[in-house]
Amino acid sequence: MDTREMMKAAKKASRQMGMLTTEQKNLALTKMADALIANVDKIIAANDEDMAAAKGVISDVMLDRLMINKDRIESMAAGIRDVVKLPDPVGRILDENEPKPGLKVKKVSVPIGVIAIIYESRPNVTADAAALTLKSGNACVLRGGKEAYRTARAIADVLREGVGAAGIDKDAINLVDDTSRESANLLMTSPEYIDLLIPRGGAGLINACVKNATVPCIATGTGICHVYVDKAADLEKAVKIVENAKTSRPSVCNAEEVLLVDKAIAGEFLPMIKATLVDKRIANGQEPVELRLDEIAAGIIEGTPAGEKDFDTEFLDYILAVKCVDGVEEAIDHVQTHSTGHSDAIITEDEAAAGRFTAMIDSAAVYVNASTRFTDGGEFGLGCEIGISTQKLHARGPMGLCEMNTHKYIVTGNGNIR
Amino acid sequence: MDTREMMKAAKKASRQMGMLTTEQKNLALTKMADALIANVDKIIAANDEDMAAAKGVISDVMLDRLMINKDRIESMAAGIRDVVKLPDPVGRILDENEPKPGLKVKKVSVPIGVIAIIYESRPNVTADAAALTLKSGNACVLRGGKEAYRTARAIADVLREGVGAAGIDKDAINLVDDTSRESANLLMTSPEYIDLLIPRGGAGLINACVKNATVPCIATGTGICHVYVDKAADLEKAVKIVENAKTSRPSVCNAEEVLLVDKAIAGEFLPMIKATLVDKRIANGQEPVELRLDEIAAGIIEGTPAGEKDFDTEFLDYILAVKCVDGVEEAIDHVQTHSTGHSDAIITEDEAAAGRFTAMIDSAAVYVNASTRFTDGGEFGLGCEIGISTQKLHARGPMGLCEMNTHKYIVTGNGNIR
Repeated sequence: MDTREMMKAAKKASRQMGMLTTEQKNLALTKMADALIANVDKIIAANDEDMAAAKGVISDVMLDRLMINKDRIESMAAGIRDVVKLPDPVGRILDENEPKPGLKVKKVSVPIGVIAIIYESRPNVTADAAALTLKSGNACVLRGGKEAYRTARAIADVLREGVGAAGIDKDAINLVDDTSRESANLLMTSPEYIDLLIPRGGAGLINACVKNATVPCIATGTGICHVYVDKAADLEKAVKIVENAKTSRPSVCNAEEVLLVDKAIAGEFLPMIKATLVDKRIANGQEPVELRLDEIAAGIIEGTPAGEKDFDTEFLDYILAVKCVDGVEEAIDHVQTHSTGHSDAIITEDEAAAGRFTAMIDSAAVYVNASTRFTDGGEFGLGCEIGISTQKLHARGPMGLCEMNTHKYIVTGNGNIR
Repeated sequence: MDTREMMKAAKKASRQMGMLTTEQKNLALTKMADALIANVDKIIAANDEDMAAAKGVISDVMLDRLMINKDRIESMAAGIRDVVKLPDPVGRILDENEPKPGLKVKKVSVPIGVIAIIYESRPNVTADAAALTLKSGNACVLRGGKEAYRTARAIADVLREGVGAAGIDKDAINLVDDTSRESANLLMTSPEYIDLLIPRGGAGLINACVKNATVPCIATGTGICHVYVDKAADLEKAVKIVENAKTSRPSVCNAEEVLLVDKAIAGEFLPMIKATLVDKRIANGQEPVELRLDEIAAGIIEGTPAGEKDFDTEFLDYILAVKCVDGVEEAIDHVQTHSTGHSDAIITEDEAAAGRFTAMIDSAAVYVNASTRFTDGGEFGLGCEIGISTQKLHARGPMGLCEMNTHKYIVTGNGNIR
């Protein structure tokens, strides 16, 4: 289907969706999950074609992301059933007052309208994004990566069937057929149909959206996350937190990329870090972390000398840039200059230093004595997330169902005039 | 001063401003108001120069907007003193939970950072915008119109003096010296310094911002507001509301531009409208409203035949486009197609029709039996407004102090790892 026609259909469907009851939406979600399970073979067959075409063209890591099997489909369906359990964000009374006798002003949460999501090759995003936009009363226009098109098409067709079976307009869920750059540009520049664009992907995609979009756009993702270990830190805690933040899942945006160490304790702390991130991992047969050290750190432990760009790189890998700083003020200064505004932490037992750090660091999440890995909708108690916003308007940090709503004022009078 | 240097200074000042106490900010506001009063002569002298240069170049209406006298300066100062009384939006705990034992997640309101405001020739906007950004903990970079530069410069200098007298970095308030298009473009495309851009002005300015800005931008203002008079309306109420919405202040964005009338009552209602908006006003020596009528309305009362573009024009004048529709569904359809998403009203005693209209109309404010003129920060009880957002993200409708804040998550643990 032509992308413009699809956007138009989505807009039309979206006008009805704000009025769906919670029960109707939950029924649709259940039917969507059922339809996934009923069509396992069809989806796997489509995925086989994608995999065959992609072999040798994309990396093994990417191939693994693209691959789908019965387990992964079941886990998608389970994810959709989890969304059924989440509270409906639509229709919350956010504020209410009566500024003049008889004039009632109610601020009510309503769906945003049509949400476009541009993503890459993970097929599960198709199901996730469709479920979250539907539960929040929005229509969606999804555009996945070229390599995953057949799989995404099969999943989207099945989800649309489920929606239809619940008596809701199938055009609540749409997948763009054109995977060329042109369709991405069209989504970015069609404010008459698209109310919000969420790019999920690398820095290139996100920058293109920020630069070219005339549609409101929420940038998600890039995380150059810092952990600063203060002179007043409990060093045992600090080692555990750095180990967790760096190695529990290095490929995600809330993983640590830069370690800042107070010079006052660097002599004691850096050997502990090397023992944990390098020596212990080698002894355990795990991939060691490559430490990219500034000059002072290099005088204390072994590692690779850090280049300037190492402090501005989202490695998403077993690599950690290490810099020694002169106390909390230099740490704050470094983070303010180099952070992408995602998640940054201070490890300290000194409340004044912690307070100063949390006040001065302008990031979505600022941590004291905890791992940056907690920045996540599920971990924060939102129940889900469509992404993590690193910008300041509308949504900042994990974006859950409530952030997929806007509000309107409903004003009721009895002939009131101003 | 060079605009880029100024943005840099604003960013630096903004980093300290989130930590100012309410008392410090209120002291600064008081000193700002005092400084305005102490410098009345200086400001009027600057204004005299602007007025002399603008005479014959801009219209009389624009000249009146540009003109400043002792009264207007006193009213600016009073406006600033009103901001002192408003609650401080910074530091509100928006949400708080403990998802894991010992891991406390707090969502706290914080300033956005640097807010740039591009506006036209009203000098009072300089004082208003500076006061509201300061109270909300933000630094501002203001860029007024060329004709008003000397006046705005004098006001900004005086306000900066006041801020300095309260011991706060003067760079909290900045006025761009370069009034060429280049400086506006620079503000739109400097996300490293500007966190939010608010264009206040005509459609041309707002479209340029939406199209070119890489900085997050909140569009304010354009209001093609509709009043639909349903067959179940109390016609006396309806006449009063239409009269108020159209004539109480036609030059503002919440004034009515389009009247939709249910065919079923058009024969009775339109003559009442003509009697009130035309005949009564002529009898009172007031400017009558020009009625631009669709074919059916033209068959009932006298007026100008409406052209197609009359239903897509923000007249901001004593002009009203009138169209007869076949009940609430056609009214909804027309509003959905032609509204700018500002304020739209239904007049009816039928609750079902009212419910249908408020559910289906996707505007910042949707009214039942009240005038669209109430869409205003003051009227809605926000105490002030920096503008009225007609878009859906972050702020929608009147934008008060709370909408000039974002939030961050402050997460405190005791060594928690994921």
